[in-house]
Amino acid sequence: MENKEISQAVISRLPRYFRYLGELKDEGIERISSQELSDIMKVTASQIRQDFNNFGGFGQQGYGYKVEYLYEEIGKILGLDKKHNLIIVGAGNLGQALANYVNFERRGFLFKGMFDQNPALHGMKIRNMEVRPMEEMAAFVKENDIDIAVLTIPKTGAVGVAEQLVKEGIKGIWNFAHVDLNVPKTVQVENVHLSDSLMKLTYNINRYESENDI
Amino acid sequence: MENKEISQAVISRLPRYFRYLGELKDEGIERISSQELSDIMKVTASQIRQDFNNFGGFGQQGYGYKVEYLYEEIGKILGLDKKHNLIIVGAGNLGQALANYVNFERRGFLFKGMFDQNPALHGMKIRNMEVRPMEEMAAFVKENDIDIAVLTIPKTGAVGVAEQLVKEGIKGIWNFAHVDLNVPKTVQVENVHLSDSLMKLTYNINRYESENDI
Repeated sequence: MENKEISQAVISRLPRYFRYLGELKDEGIERISSQELSDIMKVTASQIRQDFNNFGGFGQQGYGYKVEYLYEEIGKILGLDKKHNLIIVGAGNLGQALANYVNFERRGFLFKGMFDQNPALHGMKIRNMEVRPMEEMAAFVKENDIDIAVLTIPKTGAVGVAEQLVKEGIKGIWNFAHVDLNVPKTVQVENVHLSDSLMKLTYNINRYESENDI
Repeated sequence: MENKEISQAVISRLPRYFRYLGELKDEGIERISSQELSDIMKVTASQIRQDFNNFGGFGQQGYGYKVEYLYEEIGKILGLDKKHNLIIVGAGNLGQALANYVNFERRGFLFKGMFDQNPALHGMKIRNMEVRPMEEMAAFVKENDIDIAVLTIPKTGAVGVAEQLVKEGIKGIWNFAHVDLNVPKTVQVENVHLSDSLMKLTYNINRYESENDI
């Protein structure tokens, strides 16, 4: 990959391209123009071309894009041509929901272990994974070549757990704990702050009502 | 509120300000300068001032901001001074996880009903809510003054359910289904596409490794 800095806004749009291209591929569509893609995805064709130009453009505009090629190239950029080993820290409802989401596995995300501090959950099986005590996490990460940890624990424990994971050489943290983690630049963090997202929704509802005197 | 267009990027940052200010308030801190807030939140002080200027600035810079006032004002902007009635459509693990998240209630998000198409789940109680058949959803939304629907169902059903909800006058949809919904501008949608977020993480891992020859 080139060393050019690509904005997080562009990166945020890549999974959505990947999703739509996957659907087109499944429908047996072989070629698509940026205009057709624009109509389906409801973004401008020039936005699509600009986004793709960050990665070399992906082929001729006149003929349109080859769907399968584009799907695979974007998949590579997203790191989906490699398998990823994951653990889930926090075996509550949210951790279980993620463990049970089969689509992740199809994309190369392999859930290898699950951890919780609640002894009542230890030994419980969730999709072939036994819930283990937190004390076993560090050794497990090392022994099983885990690269991503999913944190579905309350915010109080999250900072300490993240520190431990960093020490064990984790590459990425998918953080659902409602706190910003402070990790070195060698570790990538993607936050899913659910209540932030819900507040953004109420902001937009509120704003729509103010503007329309509802 | 003024009719000025405020970018979604600014809006995305508001819940984070709200979260940090809530913590400062809980710690008994009364005043904070934009520089101090900048140090804690790891955004520049000028970014903070710029963001706040979208809403009139929230008070004197020389003296710093009054924490509680700022917290409450941002809360109002986010629509958190009003109560919101919600239903959850989809009573699987993810729906249950959201139903059990007590912090939502403290912020005025009141879960009133839960729906699922699986008859095996009907009658099951999740935090005082009985899981009801989908056929009851439309009438329930009307009778209980529901303004927000949380969609935690697979993508195949989501578009149809969203159409029904729009017809019943829902104001907002918090969409966890892995599909983009096509609703009129009168209805606000906030998407949480979990696998998009996971792919963004692997992109950043991949990129970090490429750039550092790992």
